[in-house]
Amino acid sequence: MTLVMYERVGFEHRRPSPFSWRIRYALTHKGLEVEYRPTRFADVETIKRLSGQPFVPILVDGATVVHDSWRIATYLEDRFPERPALFGDEATRAGTRFLNLWADTLLVTLRRLMYADFVWCLTPEDRAYFRVSREQELGQTLEAACADRPKWQARFDTVCRPLERLLAEQEFLAGGHPRYSDYIVFSVFQWARLGSPHDVVKPDTALDRWRSRMIALFDGLADKFPPYPTDRLEP
Amino acid sequence: MTLVMYERVGFEHRRPSPFSWRIRYALTHKGLEVEYRPTRFADVETIKRLSGQPFVPILVDGATVVHDSWRIATYLEDRFPERPALFGDEATRAGTRFLNLWADTLLVTLRRLMYADFVWCLTPEDRAYFRVSREQELGQTLEAACADRPKWQARFDTVCRPLERLLAEQEFLAGGHPRYSDYIVFSVFQWARLGSPHDVVKPDTALDRWRSRMIALFDGLADKFPPYPTDRLEP
Repeated sequence: MTLVMYERVGFEHRRPSPFSWRIRYALTHKGLEVEYRPTRFADVETIKRLSGQPFVPILVDGATVVHDSWRIATYLEDRFPERPALFGDEATRAGTRFLNLWADTLLVTLRRLMYADFVWCLTPEDRAYFRVSREQELGQTLEAACADRPKWQARFDTVCRPLERLLAEQEFLAGGHPRYSDYIVFSVFQWARLGSPHDVVKPDTALDRWRSRMIALFDGLADKFPPYPTDRLEP
Repeated sequence: MTLVMYERVGFEHRRPSPFSWRIRYALTHKGLEVEYRPTRFADVETIKRLSGQPFVPILVDGATVVHDSWRIATYLEDRFPERPALFGDEATRAGTRFLNLWADTLLVTLRRLMYADFVWCLTPEDRAYFRVSREQELGQTLEAACADRPKWQARFDTVCRPLERLLAEQEFLAGGHPRYSDYIVFSVFQWARLGSPHDVVKPDTALDRWRSRMIALFDGLADKFPPYPTDRLEP
């Protein structure tokens, strides 16, 4: 039976959610048949009715509805153990969970490099919702939150340092081949890549080379949707 | 044949090195017979002659000399594969390497909470060496570097957040049982615990409970050496 995945959709078919990207990679890694259902930011009611909570991605497997990207990934691993492994042994899964939580700190730091640009990746009808909710959270406008770019880029570089050192030693976070740990961290850089016209990764670094390898995976999956809308216009 | 490990020794038999602690745990985890050779901070020449570089821990296994804690841990795993695993499969080792590099950022943040106290854990003859080299690195006195305790404690708490969240979900970093990932991170907290009279961990947190479990391991290995010298005196 085909799985159904509800994933965030943005302006003109863009895919702006890092959490949806890591699950898209996980599903592709497992070679599963999936029907993707694009979901707008403002579709909170649909999502709530389906899963009892307001966030995508959501995976529907027959009568089973799973939400939260980590729970979806572990669900897929346990449900399809004969397919290529997303984790490995118990210790790998436990360690990948750490990476998942650590990647949240990457996302938090990136907000200050992204939010003012990112709003333009959403459909015009979703922009006000995003702006109001995020500005409330930050206590300032998106533009003010993102004003000091050099400061936040420096902070992001510091947070990324262990990653840069790791990828100078090995091809992928999981070693010789990508696994879910790679998809988690790549989804953060994919968000940065599609959600802003600025590159947050320095050229010719180990991180940059790893990102290129990740973009090339699965027949260039990362490039199947539109890039940042440089011709953005006020709605 | 008995392995030999050179590890840092401090004031009145204290063991002040996080890198030596993680290897002590790894050796105990593997159940190996080891002769520990205490090495002073100023014994740089001995260490260089032995290993061609100036840092402990060093492991000597017959004609093989291994330096750098990560290299020692992977050496032990490959040399004694029939003993309890420090990692697991290839992906676990790769992921643990990330944790090892991430733990360095913990150590860097901790310096600002530790250095002014830590100097008293060293033998009186080693204190000047430590002070001069660290003050050169920091560009200020140890006391000035450690003056703003609330600031650095807040920064440390932020860096520890993924750890706190992880340990609220699972008993150990490696899942149900401790492995090398736990020893890496514990060695950082063991350094903080033995190297300063202040506790950097908030009571009643998941991190605090995990640390207690780690202290209790191997018949209370973490408490086999003297705690912080509260009766410290100028040499």
